[in-house]
Amino acid sequence: MAEPITQCDVDFRVRYSEVDQMGVVHHSRYWVYFEMGRTELLRRQGTAYADLEREGVLLAVVNCSARFRAAAGYDELLTLTTRIGEVRRASITHEYEVRRKADGVLICTGRTTLACIDRDRRVIPLPPAIRHGP
Amino acid sequence: MAEPITQCDVDFRVRYSEVDQMGVVHHSRYWVYFEMGRTELLRRQGTAYADLEREGVLLAVVNCSARFRAAAGYDELLTLTTRIGEVRRASITHEYEVRRKADGVLICTGRTTLACIDRDRRVIPLPPAIRHGP
Amino acid sequence: MAEPITQCDVDFRVRYSEVDQMGVVHHSRYWVYFEMGRTELLRRQGTAYADLEREGVLLAVVNCSARFRAAAGYDELLTLTTRIGEVRRASITHEYEVRRKADGVLICTGRTTLACIDRDRRVIPLPPAIRHGP
Amino acid sequence: MAEPITQCDVDFRVRYSEVDQMGVVHHSRYWVYFEMGRTELLRRQGTAYADLEREGVLLAVVNCSARFRAAAGYDELLTLTTRIGEVRRASITHEYEVRRKADGVLICTGRTTLACIDRDRRVIPLPPAIRHGP
Repeated sequence: MAEPITQCDVDFRVRYSEVDQMGVVHHSRYWVYFEMGRTELLRRQGTAYADLEREGVLLAVVNCSARFRAAAGYDELLTLTTRIGEVRRASITHEYEVRRKADGVLICTGRTTLACIDRDRRVIPLPPAIRHGP
Repeated sequence: MAEPITQCDVDFRVRYSEVDQMGVVHHSRYWVYFEMGRTELLRRQGTAYADLEREGVLLAVVNCSARFRAAAGYDELLTLTTRIGEVRRASITHEYEVRRKADGVLICTGRTTLACIDRDRRVIPLPPAIRHGP
Repeated sequence: MAEPITQCDVDFRVRYSEVDQMGVVHHSRYWVYFEMGRTELLRRQGTAYADLEREGVLLAVVNCSARFRAAAGYDELLTLTTRIGEVRRASITHEYEVRRKADGVLICTGRTTLACIDRDRRVIPLPPAIRHGP
Repeated sequence: MAEPITQCDVDFRVRYSEVDQMGVVHHSRYWVYFEMGRTELLRRQGTAYADLEREGVLLAVVNCSARFRAAAGYDELLTLTTRIGEVRRASITHEYEVRRKADGVLICTGRTTLACIDRDRRVIPLPPAIRHGP
């Protein structure tokens, strides 16, 4: 039986419009990166989040935090590591690390908790594919 | 009978995250400003676009252009003027001007054409409230 | 002697592009709102952050967290309350609350810690205007 | 002698936060994609735009237009083709096409003209690397 997949790495380049007038990635952009990481982790587990939403299973961020340790600039190649933290009946926590690919310098760490809800925003159990992996 | 309302002005401040590392508003942000202008123009005509969408009437940008003449910086107070251009059976064209409020300097002009569509993205006639005003 | 100003309220409308396909404000947008709140609080204290940056005094987010309690939709009028939390030699913490203006429902709370740095990203003391208010 | 490189393709996935409540990529996002295309085209020609900016050579969008023909949704894989159009002494025009990778359906076409300016926003000649390619 295959080991469950509980983390994944995604490489990406910083886009020009993601950088502010200090010349560094604006802190609000990291949540967009983290979301990209969750999407890829789910895909490698065999689930497309787009399909989940079409079936009426939504994952809404209810809690989040981040710590910024170094700055990243335009066109830098970054590596985002996304890991599953705690999985509960109706929520899931992910942890993130962003590193500069060239030298491994840690740029940022983060954490989000997502609640599983239906289209009327009522809490529902996480689907088994997310709770237990593939 | 009241004159139809065919233009409106909105004042707003440039947000920090809207500015790029050249220190000026990124060109992609103006479309967000223009959309704010259309929302306000519609509201002054008596229609909330949010209500239209709930009723299944969507306005999708099909064509757009802009010309940038001067730069705007963080925290500058700008005035956006939105005017109705051509109104056709199933589409509407708006024209925009953004000026620095302090001295009236022209920052940018733009134009968008929106098609009226339903939730299945089929073209439908513009609602009378938009075609003829209040 | 005037009381120091340590909090301020800003009203604003949710823009169309700030809402995701769940029909609610995307969580990444709240950081942009919070930044707008900090800018306004500083302004009421008599300081323009744009001027500070021109003088080489930058405030960089080093830590942030938020908790989302209810959803906000397109065109809703929201009230953002920004308060100064802890002020240290070279950092400042702000606390935020976003409420729906119509009924006062709490949408989101947040907190950011900003470090004061120079253009070479070295930590420097907060300017007196920020430490002690006007 | 090698043929000059005058176009390039970039594949990318639509991020969740790029989609609006109609469930399609918001029109303002395409300018961010186009910019990514220009960055990659320049890189394949042997120039990093980040380096140009560090040397004081900036490329500012002065004119842009786009036409939207079909909608793209969250997590769809898209192909952006960027081509050099007209090259003048101090400006360069690019043309863009975005297609759905799965079936080649044309989503959007666009065009931007960039002026070459220095840090004081005065027009300067395009560097030879951009005018003539590698």
